[in-house]
Amino acid sequence: MAREKNEPAPMFTQLGLIGCGLMGGSFALALKRAGLVKRVVGYSKSPTTTERARALGVIDVAAESALLAVSGSDIVLIAVPVAASEATFKAIRHLVEPGVLFMDVGSTKRDVVDAARRALKERVGSFVPAHPIAGKEVAGIEHADALLYSGRQVILTPMLQTDPVLLQKATDVWSAIGSQVLKMSPENHDAAFAAVSHLPHLLAFAYFSSVAKQPAGKDFLSLAGPGFRDFTRIAASDASVWRDILMSNREEILKQSQRFRHQLDALEHVMKLGNSEALEDLIRSASQARSGWQMGAPNKSGGSR
Amino acid sequence: MAREKNEPAPMFTQLGLIGCGLMGGSFALALKRAGLVKRVVGYSKSPTTTERARALGVIDVAAESALLAVSGSDIVLIAVPVAASEATFKAIRHLVEPGVLFMDVGSTKRDVVDAARRALKERVGSFVPAHPIAGKEVAGIEHADALLYSGRQVILTPMLQTDPVLLQKATDVWSAIGSQVLKMSPENHDAAFAAVSHLPHLLAFAYFSSVAKQPAGKDFLSLAGPGFRDFTRIAASDASVWRDILMSNREEILKQSQRFRHQLDALEHVMKLGNSEALEDLIRSASQARSGWQMGAPNKSGGSR
Repeated sequence: MAREKNEPAPMFTQLGLIGCGLMGGSFALALKRAGLVKRVVGYSKSPTTTERARALGVIDVAAESALLAVSGSDIVLIAVPVAASEATFKAIRHLVEPGVLFMDVGSTKRDVVDAARRALKERVGSFVPAHPIAGKEVAGIEHADALLYSGRQVILTPMLQTDPVLLQKATDVWSAIGSQVLKMSPENHDAAFAAVSHLPHLLAFAYFSSVAKQPAGKDFLSLAGPGFRDFTRIAASDASVWRDILMSNREEILKQSQRFRHQLDALEHVMKLGNSEALEDLIRSASQARSGWQMGAPNKSGGSR
Repeated sequence: MAREKNEPAPMFTQLGLIGCGLMGGSFALALKRAGLVKRVVGYSKSPTTTERARALGVIDVAAESALLAVSGSDIVLIAVPVAASEATFKAIRHLVEPGVLFMDVGSTKRDVVDAARRALKERVGSFVPAHPIAGKEVAGIEHADALLYSGRQVILTPMLQTDPVLLQKATDVWSAIGSQVLKMSPENHDAAFAAVSHLPHLLAFAYFSSVAKQPAGKDFLSLAGPGFRDFTRIAASDASVWRDILMSNREEILKQSQRFRHQLDALEHVMKLGNSEALEDLIRSASQARSGWQMGAPNKSGGSR
């Protein structure tokens, strides 16, 4: 899937950026750094944010509307909270023209694809849904980072109608900024990320609250060590971003939570029985599997991609 | 509680080390590094382990029994799995004499204190229960590290009978190898660590298993990113160590798990209702509290220490 080294880099005249936050800003900086774009026109709902993005040099021109950010662009990145996707598609639909690459960066894909179908109708083929597996616990344009996507996976979830030329362009531009591109269906994407990203966030929020909210919580927190620190790191994630993700993918997340509860029940059951051997077996199977896991390691079994 | 800088370092003639693993080996290396001990006599259940510890220079002399490791020592560290504490106390009780400092490194304290009372009886005052908040996901003498305890907290949980001179010696020796010493009751210790250490391990084991054991688990795991990596790091912990901890502190851990389940239920309830606002509020309270937390920060509210 990687681009050949000697192929000319894809080049765009103008990136229209809708949503000047961490994700959008980092994409703009990455394209600029790689010399892939001449000009970035940006729009954010808050004029202060748009102005800050301009002052920081993340965008070159501030647009007064999403539609104006699209006007004249040959690549458009929609980097808004997933719940705002449909309104954004509606706002720009008159300028969604063939040959212009439209992408998003949302952590859920079924809802975004559905919103795109509803709002863009016959123009939906210009939209290539994208989810870069990257982020920080801090949000906002001031944390934008040209290297945020470098060495990270990006999942594209094309529809039947997706223009294959634009899908290739999308693959090329992410590859050119150092990402590894994978393709899967929106359904498989949402099931996978409910399991490996959304549920852990939900559990981390629940766990941190359960400690912090108890009477001796402050005392307990002052004793916590490095295991606790790493386990709860994602509990510091942005509340509005995660509200949207948990809400829009809740069906899959609740299914994954059921699986988790079954495992927790099994562990607690053997603890209550005092069955040390069974407890050790359950722990060992988790411990060995985790020891053998490596981030970004290709799945040798083949599978659903 | 810290030792004065100009006070002479405590000095021991012989450390008797029972259990030559990561924790015990690291303590021996730290004492040697700080020039606090002339000689280390070590014993492990497995002669191979004892021999390896000697070959690695972690211990100077290999003892053939726990009792022989105690003989002639003025400081003894019992660094065995918590479930083996009572048998160890019984094996050495005839040489538990006043003036010799006995400590353990167990992650649970009520059970160890109870075992010490039963086995040592009127000699229990020589035992200062200790829990250094340090460790690695890897076990074994080959990972022993002179700096494992440096900059880490060590909790001492003295009993009414504990000899105050030995308690001071224990404080001094941990301080001298760079640890911060705190004192609390065994009960408060076990409640606190159920919350901030034992429950997260239980949740991480349950969560990792729930992902790994599902039909598409391998595919899902190949997509997991840095949030997942950090959240599941502790799931790789040693199975026999954690079997003992989860079993011996299960009462407190199950109480903490109930608190966690209540928070998870609350989050899932608002997700099911589609109440975005309430979901955001719950996430925000966790996210803000976690953002404000720092490892090792003193608890300004005072509290139970």
